Amino acid sequence: MAGPVQSIERAAAILRLLAGGPRRLGLGEVAASLGLAKGTAHGILRTLQHVDFVEQDAATGKYQLGAALLHLGTSYLDVNELRSRSLNWADALAARSGEAVRLGTPLEDRVLVVHHVFRPDDTLQTLDVGALLPLHASSLGKVLLAFGTATMESAQQAGLEPYTRHTLVTAEQLTRALGEVRELGWAAEIQEMSMGEAGLAAPIRGHGGLVVGAIGLSGPVERICDSQGHPRPGLITLLREAARAISRDLGAARW
Amino acid sequence: MAGPVQSIERAAAILRLLAGGPRRLGLGEVAASLGLAKGTAHGILRTLQHVDFVEQDAATGKYQLGAALLHLGTSYLDVNELRSRSLNWADALAARSGEAVRLGTPLEDRVLVVHHVFRPDDTLQTLDVGALLPLHASSLGKVLLAFGTATMESAQQAGLEPYTRHTLVTAEQLTRALGEVRELGWAAEIQEMSMGEAGLAAPIRGHGGLVVGAIGLSGPVERICDSQGHPRPGLITLLREAARAISRDLGAARW
Repeated sequence: MAGPVQSIERAAAILRLLAGGPRRLGLGEVAASLGLAKGTAHGILRTLQHVDFVEQDAATGKYQLGAALLHLGTSYLDVNELRSRSLNWADALAARSGEAVRLGTPLEDRVLVVHHVFRPDDTLQTLDVGALLPLHASSLGKVLLAFGTATMESAQQAGLEPYTRHTLVTAEQLTRALGEVRELGWAAEIQEMSMGEAGLAAPIRGHGGLVVGAIGLSGPVERICDSQGHPRPGLITLLREAARAISRDLGAARW
Repeated sequence: MAGPVQSIERAAAILRLLAGGPRRLGLGEVAASLGLAKGTAHGILRTLQHVDFVEQDAATGKYQLGAALLHLGTSYLDVNELRSRSLNWADALAARSGEAVRLGTPLEDRVLVVHHVFRPDDTLQTLDVGALLPLHASSLGKVLLAFGTATMESAQQAGLEPYTRHTLVTAEQLTRALGEVRELGWAAEIQEMSMGEAGLAAPIRGHGGLVVGAIGLSGPVERICDSQGHPRPGLITLLREAARAISRDLGAARW
C-alpha cells in the first residue's frame, strides 16, 4: 500500500500556513516557514495557483488563498450530516433561549464552528462559521475533550493559552473540569476566553452513542449565568433537549 | 523552472469531483471518473484524508469533503479585498433598494458568489456565498463577460445551458447582449436562469480601471422590473452608485 504523497502534504501545509498568520506571504517566507527549497515551494505554489487554490498578487508577487477553496468549503457544509441534521434544532434553540447557537466539530487540535445562528435580536453579530476555537477555553471544546472526540494531547499540543485570568491553563485544572463535564453531561465556559462572555455546550451523539460534535449557547455572561454566577438552569435544559433531539436524528437511539 | 506537480493537480481534481455531483463517492468511482488507477487514487485519497481535506464514511467506506476545507474557505473570504472593501456598501445597497445583494468574482468557467446580503425583509433566504453561477445566465456573469474578466470561451466551455426559454443559448445572442452591457455599463438578467426571478449587476473596477468583480441586485421579477418589464431605473442608479463607490475604495480613481 502506497504511503502518503509528499507533494500533497506539502501543498496542504502551504494552504494552512496561508490561512493562519499574515495570510499574504512571499515565496521566500513560504519556503522558510516550511523548511522547503525555494524551487520546491515555487513548483507547489504554481500548481496551487493553476488550480485556483492560491492567488498571486500582481503588484507584490505575494501569495494568498484562492477562490476555489471557498466553493470547496461551502460544499463541505452541504455534505456535513451533523450540520444538516441540526439546522432546524439550532434555529429553534436560538429562538427559545434568546441566545446565539453554535455547532462544533473537532479539526486538528481545535474546534471548527460548522454552524452559527445569531442571537435573535438586532445587534450586529459576525458569522463564526469556519472559525477555529481553542479546545480548553470554549464550552464546545470542553465537551469534545470530555467525551473523547478530541484528545487531551491535542489540546496541550495547541497550547493551553491563558486568554483571561479564568482560563484553565494546566492539565490538572482541565482534567478536573472535564470530569465534571462528564458527570453533569454539559460544559460551561465562564469568562475563560473573553471577559464578559460565557458559553454552555452539550454533546451530540451519533450512531452507537459516540459523541460526534457539540452544540452550544453563548453570549454576555449576565445573560448566560444568574446573579450567583451559575449557568441558568433554564438554558441548560433547552440546550440538552436540543442536543438529545439532534442525537436521535443522527441515530443515537438511547439519548 | 519546474512544471506543475501532477499529484497536486490530481488531488485538486478529486476535491472538485467531490464538491460536484453526488458528493459521496467510493474509491472505484473516483478512480474511474478521473481515469486514474485505483492504487494511485487511493494514495491521493489517503493523503487528503490525512490532512483533513477528505473524510471517509466508516460505514460505507465512501469519501466526502473534509472539515479543513471549511476553514480554508472562510479564511479566503477574510483575505479577499474585493469583498472586504464591499461589505458596508453592500449592506447599504440592500437597505436602500430593499433587495438582496450579491458580489461575484470569476472562478474557472463560472461566477463565484463571495458575498450575499439578504433582502431586508422577514422571508426565509439561503446564503449563496460559495455558490457557483453560470456566466451566461446571471447578471453578475454577464458583467464579468462583457468587461473581459471572464472569457466567452470559458462560458461556452461550461455550456450555454437553457435554464428557461429566456436564457441566451447561442454565442450570437450572448455576444449581442454583452455589447449592450458594455454600452449601458450594467447588465440585466430577466427570467433567464429561473422563471419569476431577475437580476441587475454592475462592474467593480480595481487599480487601473480593470474590472475585478461585479455587484448585483436580485429578486422577484416584479420587484426588479417595472410594469413594462424593464429594469427599474431607481434600482439601476443605486446599484451603479454602489459599484462606483467600491471601485473608488479599491483604487480605481476615475470611476
